[in-house]
Amino acid sequence: MTISMSHDSYGKSDVRVMKVTHSPEGDSVVEYSVDIRVEGDFAEGYYTGDNTHVLPTDTMKNTVYILARKHDFDSPEAFALILARHFVDNHPHADRAFATVTERPWARLSPGGKTHPQGFTQATNERRTAYVDHSAEVTVVEGGLTDLVILKSTNSGFSDFLRDEYTTLQDAADRVLATSLTASWSYASPEVDFNAAFDKARTALLQTFADHQSLSVQHTLYAMGEEALKVAEEIDGVHIEMPNKHNLPVDLSPFGLDNPHEILMPIDEPSGFIEATLLRE
Amino acid sequence: MTISMSHDSYGKSDVRVMKVTHSPEGDSVVEYSVDIRVEGDFAEGYYTGDNTHVLPTDTMKNTVYILARKHDFDSPEAFALILARHFVDNHPHADRAFATVTERPWARLSPGGKTHPQGFTQATNERRTAYVDHSAEVTVVEGGLTDLVILKSTNSGFSDFLRDEYTTLQDAADRVLATSLTASWSYASPEVDFNAAFDKARTALLQTFADHQSLSVQHTLYAMGEEALKVAEEIDGVHIEMPNKHNLPVDLSPFGLDNPHEILMPIDEPSGFIEATLLRE
Amino acid sequence: MTISMSHDSYGKSDVRVMKVTHSPEGDSVVEYSVDIRVEGDFAEGYYTGDNTHVLPTDTMKNTVYILARKHDFDSPEAFALILARHFVDNHPHADRAFATVTERPWARLSPGGKTHPQGFTQATNERRTAYVDHSAEVTVVEGGLTDLVILKSTNSGFSDFLRDEYTTLQDAADRVLATSLTASWSYASPEVDFNAAFDKARTALLQTFADHQSLSVQHTLYAMGEEALKVAEEIDGVHIEMPNKHNLPVDLSPFGLDNPHEILMPIDEPSGFIEATLLRE
Amino acid sequence: MTISMSHDSYGKSDVRVMKVTHSPEGDSVVEYSVDIRVEGDFAEGYYTGDNTHVLPTDTMKNTVYILARKHDFDSPEAFALILARHFVDNHPHADRAFATVTERPWARLSPGGKTHPQGFTQATNERRTAYVDHSAEVTVVEGGLTDLVILKSTNSGFSDFLRDEYTTLQDAADRVLATSLTASWSYASPEVDFNAAFDKARTALLQTFADHQSLSVQHTLYAMGEEALKVAEEIDGVHIEMPNKHNLPVDLSPFGLDNPHEILMPIDEPSGFIEATLLRE
Repeated sequence: MTISMSHDSYGKSDVRVMKVTHSPEGDSVVEYSVDIRVEGDFAEGYYTGDNTHVLPTDTMKNTVYILARKHDFDSPEAFALILARHFVDNHPHADRAFATVTERPWARLSPGGKTHPQGFTQATNERRTAYVDHSAEVTVVEGGLTDLVILKSTNSGFSDFLRDEYTTLQDAADRVLATSLTASWSYASPEVDFNAAFDKARTALLQTFADHQSLSVQHTLYAMGEEALKVAEEIDGVHIEMPNKHNLPVDLSPFGLDNPHEILMPIDEPSGFIEATLLRE
Repeated sequence: MTISMSHDSYGKSDVRVMKVTHSPEGDSVVEYSVDIRVEGDFAEGYYTGDNTHVLPTDTMKNTVYILARKHDFDSPEAFALILARHFVDNHPHADRAFATVTERPWARLSPGGKTHPQGFTQATNERRTAYVDHSAEVTVVEGGLTDLVILKSTNSGFSDFLRDEYTTLQDAADRVLATSLTASWSYASPEVDFNAAFDKARTALLQTFADHQSLSVQHTLYAMGEEALKVAEEIDGVHIEMPNKHNLPVDLSPFGLDNPHEILMPIDEPSGFIEATLLRE
Repeated sequence: MTISMSHDSYGKSDVRVMKVTHSPEGDSVVEYSVDIRVEGDFAEGYYTGDNTHVLPTDTMKNTVYILARKHDFDSPEAFALILARHFVDNHPHADRAFATVTERPWARLSPGGKTHPQGFTQATNERRTAYVDHSAEVTVVEGGLTDLVILKSTNSGFSDFLRDEYTTLQDAADRVLATSLTASWSYASPEVDFNAAFDKARTALLQTFADHQSLSVQHTLYAMGEEALKVAEEIDGVHIEMPNKHNLPVDLSPFGLDNPHEILMPIDEPSGFIEATLLRE
Repeated sequence: MTISMSHDSYGKSDVRVMKVTHSPEGDSVVEYSVDIRVEGDFAEGYYTGDNTHVLPTDTMKNTVYILARKHDFDSPEAFALILARHFVDNHPHADRAFATVTERPWARLSPGGKTHPQGFTQATNERRTAYVDHSAEVTVVEGGLTDLVILKSTNSGFSDFLRDEYTTLQDAADRVLATSLTASWSYASPEVDFNAAFDKARTALLQTFADHQSLSVQHTLYAMGEEALKVAEEIDGVHIEMPNKHNLPVDLSPFGLDNPHEILMPIDEPSGFIEATLLRE
């Protein structure tokens, strides 16, 4: 029997780093979770345990902290670029490096309506994401967001769908539509203004979600992606995942009550799953 | 051997209900998770399996949905009162009922800065909580919040503490202080304006957290509770739990770098734990 | 306004420690998560930030590791006793200490049926728990287990229960009964053989759960507690919580199929909740 | 601007189904979580909201329950095949279907050492997994396992690795090695004995993990995959992921104590990440 190794990579997961900057106008707090992966000339380590090409993942962890201290950056994309380039540039055995940076956003506290210069809250489940795939040949940069839980209370239906012998679902002229949005987009180059692009894409996705006359999740997902590509010239493709997080109307008729889509039971599982990738031609 | 049963209760946990109200000025979406417990004359069910006193927990679930449809309420405290009173009033075997209502807040989406009438986001991990303990003799109502993650980037130290032979911690003149705040307060009566009290107490807690010149978590916790009691006359006691969620400064000296409290490593465990209950005399 | 502090405590949560012992006959691996709390003369720290009575929670963490190295112990109860006594005995300001020790069990791997001397798996979600409340006056020791997910496929019904106008549940002569068992018991003294008592109590709980002709969760819970008290003389009381984790029969009649309790839909929420405390008189 | 859709799929996630079979010799309980995805002629639904090709995901949920009732199957792979084939065979718009079946294993209870015919426990976090990708052209079947937490207390080192200016890790002649194993393998055909192959592959992975003289995680991962391919002829490739779940030796020297790799601090993050895919040539 001959065995070949068709793929291998290694790295460090979940390196958490917080960077606090003090300033008379107010402090800033940035928190990232970082994943590093490298591919390259590492097969001998697998075959024989020869570690001479293997930079410890502990060093990768140190590197995250050191580069966070040495460099200024204002976006997860920028930090992911610094990291991925570092490993390829400094390690001849690493042909390719991947850096994933996930931001847990800290926002200023505003008790009583006034923004506080040194008080913060990690208010949201939403995560901003960045991903860089860097090698001598090519640098791919992606931005995105995940775990953004959104709902529209009207202007959403699902009707005239395909029916088979196992179908019991009825047409719904109007229903609550909820999802936990994940979107990622590819930047046309590593030199764009990531924060401006993020703001444009995120706003387009949310505005379209809320406004759209939805005939299905698919229908709204496509409209959202289309609008993001329209308004954010910095990106040339967008992938969107929209699980359909169901909120089931409760049948109150056994108790002599109607239920005009008012009382719903949210369930975590099962959920629908809808995804698509849209490209600018 | 004689065995006695010194305590028993039963009920339903995690009944999730969403109530959507449509209005020309904009819809509203409220989502609660409800726990019901009853105590009373239920021992025979344990001893012999005689279920004639046992209302099914499935009926409790139905009741949550039915009462959500039948009643108007504008706070988790109000809904918890409706529920706890229902079981004691309608079931002779239930001497006492407990209702816990936890709100997952939905807020209006504001893509591009303009509030949307029918688009919502479940933006925060923070939960608003209500608890009612109701019997023929007494009705206790508590409000509160949990999982409110907050941080102050300055004005926090910890020095001159007790040292023993196992102490390695150094005095810290300034440090980042972070916590996941849980607070609950008892209302002086079931007739107060719960939402007004909630807003006053929450604002007092956050304002004091952010402003306080903190000599320890204990010190700040007490100041927060004191301010909540000062500004919210509707409450007569407050219990606060403030785990110290550590963000450890990374030692960069092996790499020839200083670290002026800028690069920190957030850790989930272990965490300090500080709690106290303050009462208005 | 006068404010009083009616209760306060502090400590350290989630200190994780693993102790590995090497031996020619085979190694042992023990993993605990430890919580420490102290109560005592600590109010001044809350009032004024005077930390002179406050032993840092960081020192408590160190103490867990140091005492794990210095002492031999063969149960979580024994380690909890060592810890709680340490703080009360060595710190005049600590009147009372609480130690909670939760074990994540590691078991020997047995690939191919043969037990391996140095290979282990953390095979189960079940946690063994110990709790000590120690002061100069009294020492309470509790043992227990949590998150033990169990199911019986027959010999469980729920019938002839109380019905009100909101009841839709039908009598069930037989149903699947599943729960995530939590049990804790108080030891008659701190000098008993904790491991022997644990084994007897756990076996009694499981044997009775599996064998019982169940007329309700309450009915089975009581029988389980009664048997534990019967067989484990070392314990004088037991508290049991048995959420009813529902597995709902799926209605297949719309598709021309029957469903003799064969195809079920497990749901995580809502769940029933049943609890009781039994004491040996 | 022209926009194209380069990829789309939809389906249902987390359909949970339990199948209970009663028998005089003892009952059986099988619990699966199922994901269904289809690809095909669905673009018009995205573009215009035309749902005439769109089978509701609610129907997919029904189908899981119906096919679980109609068919006998003895492995997650077999059920995944039934599901994936159903959608492609019955829906002309579905060119390709993917079914992922994850088993939560229920094992017989053995209180007091005797196996019980109707008492079960969901004892383990380990999940058995199956994945089928089916179209008119090709049927790919994969088996595997995930979340299998294992540890070896000796025979594991990491030395003579690459060092750069950010490296602080020291050579370790011996260390505790722990991981949460994920492995998946591709079957040579859809007609093999899945359960026999699963048992052989799993035993090979665990036996090799426990026995191997490990010079690195990479080294052990490769040996494990090699052995799985050797003993399980039914599979022609295996992908393994082994995060390095660190258990850090605690430095007790400040307290005048040594620590011969005995007292360790388990941490959840960060963790190393090692993966590879091995193929039989």
